[in-house]
Amino acid sequence: DCAILSWSHHKSRDFEFLYAFYISQVTKTYKKCTATRLFDYRYTTEMEQEVRYLCHQEFGAPKEVVQLQKKTISKQLLESEILLKILASSINPADLITITGKYPIKPMLPCIPGNECVARVEGIGSGVKTLAVGDLVVPFRSGLGTWCSHGVFNAADWFRIPSTVDTVAAATLTVNPPTAYRMLKDFVTLKPGDTVLQNAANSAVGQIVSQLCRKWGINCVGVVRHRPDIDTLKATLRGLGATEIYTEEEFAKTEVFSDTLPAPKLALNCVGGESAETLLRDVAHGGTFVTYGCISTRNTSIPASVFIYRDIKCCGFWRTNWTRENHGNPERVHMLKDILAMYEAGDLTAPEAELIPIEDYQKALGGVHGKKCIITYE
Amino acid sequence: DCAILSWSHHKSRDFEFLYAFYISQVTKTYKKCTATRLFDYRYTTEMEQEVRYLCHQEFGAPKEVVQLQKKTISKQLLESEILLKILASSINPADLITITGKYPIKPMLPCIPGNECVARVEGIGSGVKTLAVGDLVVPFRSGLGTWCSHGVFNAADWFRIPSTVDTVAAATLTVNPPTAYRMLKDFVTLKPGDTVLQNAANSAVGQIVSQLCRKWGINCVGVVRHRPDIDTLKATLRGLGATEIYTEEEFAKTEVFSDTLPAPKLALNCVGGESAETLLRDVAHGGTFVTYGCISTRNTSIPASVFIYRDIKCCGFWRTNWTRENHGNPERVHMLKDILAMYEAGDLTAPEAELIPIEDYQKALGGVHGKKCIITYE
Repeated sequence: DCAILSWSHHKSRDFEFLYAFYISQVTKTYKKCTATRLFDYRYTTEMEQEVRYLCHQEFGAPKEVVQLQKKTISKQLLESEILLKILASSINPADLITITGKYPIKPMLPCIPGNECVARVEGIGSGVKTLAVGDLVVPFRSGLGTWCSHGVFNAADWFRIPSTVDTVAAATLTVNPPTAYRMLKDFVTLKPGDTVLQNAANSAVGQIVSQLCRKWGINCVGVVRHRPDIDTLKATLRGLGATEIYTEEEFAKTEVFSDTLPAPKLALNCVGGESAETLLRDVAHGGTFVTYGCISTRNTSIPASVFIYRDIKCCGFWRTNWTRENHGNPERVHMLKDILAMYEAGDLTAPEAELIPIEDYQKALGGVHGKKCIITYE
Repeated sequence: DCAILSWSHHKSRDFEFLYAFYISQVTKTYKKCTATRLFDYRYTTEMEQEVRYLCHQEFGAPKEVVQLQKKTISKQLLESEILLKILASSINPADLITITGKYPIKPMLPCIPGNECVARVEGIGSGVKTLAVGDLVVPFRSGLGTWCSHGVFNAADWFRIPSTVDTVAAATLTVNPPTAYRMLKDFVTLKPGDTVLQNAANSAVGQIVSQLCRKWGINCVGVVRHRPDIDTLKATLRGLGATEIYTEEEFAKTEVFSDTLPAPKLALNCVGGESAETLLRDVAHGGTFVTYGCISTRNTSIPASVFIYRDIKCCGFWRTNWTRENHGNPERVHMLKDILAMYEAGDLTAPEAELIPIEDYQKALGGVHGKKCIITYE
């Protein structure tokens, strides 16, 4: 009841039409509350939870529009609801673009950003059978709004994970690892000994791609931008599983593929522009070129021969859309369990992260070089 | 026997390794001939056939390197061979590019160009059961070398067609109609009411695409270059089945798709560059963009959002490769019979053509505006 007090947690930002639907539901609930309960009912302190949360009322530069706010929400839960204490929420590039209003999914305002977190269940509605108080959970859908200390959510939107999972691994479980996992599984049937090529090999996704390739016996050649500590970076990424790491300049002038290292059946592009064009030159005949990001913000210029004579397919991957389209697909649960098992077995390493209290959110929004920023609430 | 006399007809230009294999076979045959027959055996005039043929000894501009030649070949046939009288051979753009040496398939020299023709069977080897003297045939594989008045070929490389088929339709049966047919069948499952978008809508392939779409109940929007007689051209192409025809300029500034004309699931690109980029803007979410030519010779600049957010797949189609990869696929025979049935039913119209005697080959190689050039041998 009184769902209006926590409505901003319920909204799905997946697509605007869902909003319109949801808002009509919220409005109905609100009217019902007003009529029957809102003025009759007084909470005791024990029934209230103070929430600290990040929120923006308009679209714009994250550091300018995001504000730290507080409110009190009721601990009273509907049948299907859970009360969560958020332990750690990650900040992803897509979250920041969403705040600017330039992402293809434009949430309703005001909006609590965030798509990833790890949380502990603190209360469950009478109808919740799948979760218990004390369970650790991660979001099972996008757009729940995770940059908050507590929240009331639908139980069905959350996925229980083992209590032994590292906090950083758990807080970064649902965006980058599924992106890497699906791109390696869904476009090309890769066998041990095959090769994957990627740029942005030091990105959060790139690092997981290298680790998954090592686990699955696949060669993984990575390209990164040159930087002063390039030798250290190369060693680190080879340590994670990369077969070889080249700078953009080295890759452009090196004959990388040979009889012993076959040309890549699959290339993963997160950069665009010249970097993407250089990758394309080395993709095997009949191979697939998947774009999942565009750090350079530049278009990729593709000659017709790539398509016609080399039979290369160019396509894209958008995890948010995959998640939406596969909401009920058992493969999603299988994938998350597989990733969790790899973390437990040491096949995957959690990304380097900096844990930043919500009060220092300006620092968190600015980013920390080479590390994932994760908001905490102690 | 004495296959050496007509060896240039036997070679497959599909890939160079096939050549290497073939030449080793020819060499063996030649040695055998030399040893046992070549000097013992005298042909009577009735056993010889004079052949006029076009041939080039080096790669270069077609008008400069192609020559008209004559030779005499034996009518003696190996078990699996047939003697063909070629009735009409078409000239396709890919033939001309092949002569320049810039096509990805580079034939051995000297080379008789040509991939398409219609021919009459004039003699069959003792083992040939599938064809009879008098049958009309078209090539069933690429690279046979069809710009000649007669030739000895393997029976298995030819496909019998009904004697009622129009000569121009038959001489242009195996390159453009299969290109259009496969592109409409193999990338997207099109239902009646769906839309296909194409540029170069007045090309030989483009005209067949429009006609197949009409036959199959599919909307077909075409884009052409502006020209003085644009209204006549639009009327002609609508007459063939195009739903609507726009010039490049009109298309770039027109809202073409609506509730009644859905955005295209499939776009066919034969131009590249800006034209391709303009098509891409209108392809439906999740649609497919197939490149099969590049008249502009320009690369296509593609933003990452096309791949990631709009989930558009970009790929290519190369009929020569499709033919090679599907040599034994029953679908090939089914397709040719389907196309022939459409010609017989009047659903397909043969392209406008100019029949040019082989002696005027220089004119034929130069092309005739708006018409297919077809070589004849009377």
